[in-house]
Amino acid sequence: MTEGKFPHQRGESHGGGRPRVVIVGAGFGGLACARKLDRQPVDVVLLDQDNYHLFTPLLYQVATGLLNPADIAYPLRAIFRHSPNVRFRQATVAGVNLMARTVQVRGGPDIPYDFLVLATGSTDNYFGNQSIAQLSLGLKVLPHATRLRNHVLTCLERADAEADPAARQALLTFVVVGGGPTGVEYSGALAELMQIVASKDYHEISRSEIRIILVEGSARLLTAFSEHLGRYAQRVLERRGVDVRTNALVKTADQQGVALSDGTVIPSRTIIWSAGVRPNDPVGEPSPPRFRDRRIRVDARLRIAGAAGAYAIGDVASPELGDQRELPMLSPPAMQGGRYVAAAILDAIRGDTRERAAFHYLDKGTMATIGRNAGVAHLPGGLEITGFFGWLTWLFVHIYYLIGFRNRLSALGSWAWDYLRHDRPIRIILATGVEPEPAASVGSGSARKMD
Amino acid sequence: MTEGKFPHQRGESHGGGRPRVVIVGAGFGGLACARKLDRQPVDVVLLDQDNYHLFTPLLYQVATGLLNPADIAYPLRAIFRHSPNVRFRQATVAGVNLMARTVQVRGGPDIPYDFLVLATGSTDNYFGNQSIAQLSLGLKVLPHATRLRNHVLTCLERADAEADPAARQALLTFVVVGGGPTGVEYSGALAELMQIVASKDYHEISRSEIRIILVEGSARLLTAFSEHLGRYAQRVLERRGVDVRTNALVKTADQQGVALSDGTVIPSRTIIWSAGVRPNDPVGEPSPPRFRDRRIRVDARLRIAGAAGAYAIGDVASPELGDQRELPMLSPPAMQGGRYVAAAILDAIRGDTRERAAFHYLDKGTMATIGRNAGVAHLPGGLEITGFFGWLTWLFVHIYYLIGFRNRLSALGSWAWDYLRHDRPIRIILATGVEPEPAASVGSGSARKMD
Repeated sequence: MTEGKFPHQRGESHGGGRPRVVIVGAGFGGLACARKLDRQPVDVVLLDQDNYHLFTPLLYQVATGLLNPADIAYPLRAIFRHSPNVRFRQATVAGVNLMARTVQVRGGPDIPYDFLVLATGSTDNYFGNQSIAQLSLGLKVLPHATRLRNHVLTCLERADAEADPAARQALLTFVVVGGGPTGVEYSGALAELMQIVASKDYHEISRSEIRIILVEGSARLLTAFSEHLGRYAQRVLERRGVDVRTNALVKTADQQGVALSDGTVIPSRTIIWSAGVRPNDPVGEPSPPRFRDRRIRVDARLRIAGAAGAYAIGDVASPELGDQRELPMLSPPAMQGGRYVAAAILDAIRGDTRERAAFHYLDKGTMATIGRNAGVAHLPGGLEITGFFGWLTWLFVHIYYLIGFRNRLSALGSWAWDYLRHDRPIRIILATGVEPEPAASVGSGSARKMD
Repeated sequence: MTEGKFPHQRGESHGGGRPRVVIVGAGFGGLACARKLDRQPVDVVLLDQDNYHLFTPLLYQVATGLLNPADIAYPLRAIFRHSPNVRFRQATVAGVNLMARTVQVRGGPDIPYDFLVLATGSTDNYFGNQSIAQLSLGLKVLPHATRLRNHVLTCLERADAEADPAARQALLTFVVVGGGPTGVEYSGALAELMQIVASKDYHEISRSEIRIILVEGSARLLTAFSEHLGRYAQRVLERRGVDVRTNALVKTADQQGVALSDGTVIPSRTIIWSAGVRPNDPVGEPSPPRFRDRRIRVDARLRIAGAAGAYAIGDVASPELGDQRELPMLSPPAMQGGRYVAAAILDAIRGDTRERAAFHYLDKGTMATIGRNAGVAHLPGGLEITGFFGWLTWLFVHIYYLIGFRNRLSALGSWAWDYLRHDRPIRIILATGVEPEPAASVGSGSARKMD
């Protein structure tokens, strides 16, 4: 290979003059790609704004006091500690120039690339509703989960001391927006947390005072699953005391609560948003082609059209598929895309000119847990599992995919503790600022005050 | 007992018309007092600004990525979950009126008491040095520990990417101020963390570039221990690469570093303060008598002079002792004081008029760990232990005093992991704000920017 072919094969830091692959984002897609390129003849620069890979499917368990943040966050440098060619760098990417083939990072020089793998994932989508964006709590990143845990426990503390019945009711009403897996799993886990603490930790609060309202715009929960599984999830949640409102949209929010599309007003201090995501896309001008939902439109080989050496995988992009359906925004297509792109890059470096077969997403199934002993799983071939076995399946799959022996051990230990002792041990309000936050802030202002 | 004798015997929430004991602070002293009053004929209101009891002796292990915050923080409501008469309330105490016998809390009505136990502990003392107060990182409360962990790891991330040698050296220089147990333990643990990550996680950083400087004003470390133990601690730290500077004071600090009393200037982005504490005293006017160091001067029975029913224990107060020495600001005198005061209150309620013997502090020994296989312990009778057995003693005592079976299990597991694997698993930078903090903030501003 010639200097001209891979102009950025500089490898100042780890020798070699090999082509440089810059992977932006160390979520499921970026990490899978970097692992596949480990010990291959490329210099990999892996960028992420956080220094850890986050196992997002368990965020709701951090938010409900079952797992420690570190149980689902694995330091990226530890993963590539022994790698001769993959280097992690914590950086906030400010832009990507697909023509100059550079990645701009905040507070540092541009990083040139021979190959780019854009794997920046997605972020909460409030569909332009400013009041909801400002007042609701998301559940997409790790600080969201700890903030939500702090917020919910602070609401209980405040309600325990509150004499005014209306103020008290608002503090004890939790509105979860969006009936997808995140909304369903969080509602179920929150119901269990309340079962554990109401009238036990909080003597003045009875379980019947606490309202968990799950609002879903369509006719049923878990629309990505079959109708059967969606109905099952709703039945289980309702049995556990969650008030499920289908065919309902949250229209506006203020510090007193939310208003639904059917005119219902729900006084509440807590709005949890899990009703939509949008691509987290740092690419500037000239911009690549995009779908209507802003995902980057890549070709069947996950390449960004007209941008040499640039690929995009995971939530941020979707290929033009024959049957017109976009890929789901889930971890399996991201991981499969990451591995596919790694292989394609190695082909190109070897000078292999045969065109690789188009990317094909292999759906191994999807699953969600509704809480203790209740899960739903949709497997290939139309097989569906519910109940205890759905929950067990969920448990083993999640332990399997969790990175690091210690994290697996810690999560398994916590789950066993919870299962046997009915306990959520991590019920601490760890203030996010330096000076402990006055508990009063929930009561005297908006939910955002908890920041 | 008559209505007149205990005017605040209202017990609205948990029946009874029994006298009310308000305990301010749920540290070692306040918690010991509340536990002793559990199931006794009093209504106890336990107040703390946090919803957890913090096992402060292990804060430095959270700050160095060995333990999770929840391992050393135990939810107070869980401790008194089954208690019929002890109620916890999370509240920030704004003042105490010893004449009106009320406690003022932020955002709520005053709380009247029959008996007051003031156990508010201590806070960092910067002796009026504003520059140090603004720029240094403390290690007294749980958010301090997580902030320090984030800060130190961010310094490594920045140094790894920094080309300018001077900026790089400042990022890799850590100044610990104060050679008491906190400074010694933190320095030792930080040296171990650096041994683990330098040139392994951070390929561009070699251990020899990292400077940990421990600055102590007096002639030796651990002045509360014997000269022998202090010299031992210094030898062990130096062997592990800590630069110990005795007879040196930090005079000023700015964003470039610190200046010592001997004129030395140390460029550094990290100043850890463990050189002094002062009482955290919320009592307003009329103020009780105080010592020169601002601790409340209580009598030999831990009563505040001229304030009926009011006691003060732990770091916030010290009795007039015959030999003129104040009690040390450590957990054992606080716990013993808490139990003593609980017994005195029960005497008073029973109408026992015989005067209880003066409080006597039983010194069971003090200890500190300098890191792996090295500890120092001073036991009664002048017995001193160093090295591996000092470390083992330290380990068993700390496991014994840690509250909760799960916390013990979790801490033991983490210690075993660290010991066998030489690993600090919790190397995550969990941003304290909601949106992940740009890593650039350490490099572009002061250490405080990390907040």
